[in-house]
Amino acid sequence: METSLSKQNIAPKVTLMRNRLVVCICLMLLQAVDLFAQSVVNNKITKIETLNRNNGIERGPAKPYLFQYGIANAFIEGLYEGHLSIDELKKHGDFGIGAPNLIDGELTIVDGIAYQSNAKGQTIEAPGQIKTPFAFVTTFKADTTLLLANVQNIDELFTRIESLLPNRNGIYALRIGGLFSKMRTRAFPAMVQKPYRPLAKLLDQQQFFELNGMDGAMIGFYMPGYLSGINITGLHFHFLSTDRTAGGHVVALTAQNLTIEITEVKSFLLETSETADFQKFQFIGGNSSGLQKIEKGGN
Amino acid sequence: METSLSKQNIAPKVTLMRNRLVVCICLMLLQAVDLFAQSVVNNKITKIETLNRNNGIERGPAKPYLFQYGIANAFIEGLYEGHLSIDELKKHGDFGIGAPNLIDGELTIVDGIAYQSNAKGQTIEAPGQIKTPFAFVTTFKADTTLLLANVQNIDELFTRIESLLPNRNGIYALRIGGLFSKMRTRAFPAMVQKPYRPLAKLLDQQQFFELNGMDGAMIGFYMPGYLSGINITGLHFHFLSTDRTAGGHVVALTAQNLTIEITEVKSFLLETSETADFQKFQFIGGNSSGLQKIEKGGN
Repeated sequence: METSLSKQNIAPKVTLMRNRLVVCICLMLLQAVDLFAQSVVNNKITKIETLNRNNGIERGPAKPYLFQYGIANAFIEGLYEGHLSIDELKKHGDFGIGAPNLIDGELTIVDGIAYQSNAKGQTIEAPGQIKTPFAFVTTFKADTTLLLANVQNIDELFTRIESLLPNRNGIYALRIGGLFSKMRTRAFPAMVQKPYRPLAKLLDQQQFFELNGMDGAMIGFYMPGYLSGINITGLHFHFLSTDRTAGGHVVALTAQNLTIEITEVKSFLLETSETADFQKFQFIGGNSSGLQKIEKGGN
Repeated sequence: METSLSKQNIAPKVTLMRNRLVVCICLMLLQAVDLFAQSVVNNKITKIETLNRNNGIERGPAKPYLFQYGIANAFIEGLYEGHLSIDELKKHGDFGIGAPNLIDGELTIVDGIAYQSNAKGQTIEAPGQIKTPFAFVTTFKADTTLLLANVQNIDELFTRIESLLPNRNGIYALRIGGLFSKMRTRAFPAMVQKPYRPLAKLLDQQQFFELNGMDGAMIGFYMPGYLSGINITGLHFHFLSTDRTAGGHVVALTAQNLTIEITEVKSFLLETSETADFQKFQFIGGNSSGLQKIEKGGN
């Protein structure tokens, strides 16, 4: 009995200890749950505060948005040096076109991968650290798909597309896949000496490529008239073969069995470099005489 | 002993039940913690998926950004009907200017509050549901402050500001506070009949106000040349008295003890309406002859 009693005396103590331990674990768990819940709340609050400090509470762009880096009118006058990396560009979209640093070929971004089609006729995956002076991308997700059986030339294609787009003052991303019995592309060689001459005076340096009979896709955009000078108004495409070994800026074509996928872009986001070259660039234009009168409240 | 034994027999059972209950609670708590953790993880995954679907993974605008609704060249030609509410506009910034629906006065947004200065000389807080055809806002946080003791007229002020801005191709928001010994503002009355005539032909309907000797602030922007046609290039201000009872578009001034606060804007975000009026608007311009050659790869 002594043993039994002592056992019986110990047993409740052990049970009590176990109980206390379990209660303790429970309390710790409760505490943990509480802390976890609090940390979630705190994280949320911290985030909101951080956002406020960074002016991050704004609604941001309606999506999908077109992101553009650089201004067409400055680019074509000789601002060929790139200052935004392909990696940074791709943070704004998976689909687009542009120019590599020093217009060393043509840039085409599709399915989140950037390709550089150079003046030697090569198309390679563009390294993420390569910089662009002028490019524009969006997140492509077709909202409309059209089929065209036969297209004789680029003017016919452009006329038909423009007649099909619902809003001539909208922005559209277009991916046109099919068989191109004729596909003429061009690419510029990299510029080497500064000051760079305007692009319109360098057309003799273009290299042309006949990529006839290839399967591939035209990657590009329709831009409305009000973006004249900032981008290129109307339709503008780069080509990329299905095997992604050939491409360039599209200048002529004949095509069969085209699938035209269209993404309507909802807003336009523009960034420029802050380089001295850009800052001192003199844009032609200014306010119209009508706008000047309105601004001044009279003549 | 019988009683004692039976008590002793019951006691461990009760203890065991208690233990089991506690363990059970613990397991439930563990389960709850697990479920909570899972739901957090699941929510995150769901959110990421939702974001992907909504194209929400993009970097968005460099901040502070300027948000603009509408196109200047379309607005001044008669697109006076508003389609974006002040409440929606203010989601993009706390500082800016614009036009109320049917150009019923001038719109000035400061410290997150929108004011409407109408052609009767009243300045009232603009109801959030009022819509604007053309307005632009940013989140104002001065990065530079300049002081000017005396300014004889608006041309002198504009010349001095433009000489002080570091980048003529940048976008700047400016808040100019001080004593205005002369402040001449104007406001248009609301247009009533469609089709609306171009604004430059409605200048005889402007009402002018002499708000001389008032303390107040000029709220406005410097816009670079490449935004010609989309916005108003150069400097453009609305006035708001310190007591916020008077204001309008600034056309003339003499001022003392000016504090010029400047926010450099890092990106430009543009949205337009999708109304039939906007869709059918014919923008003048298009690609320059040089750009046309570049696009086509030759003449």
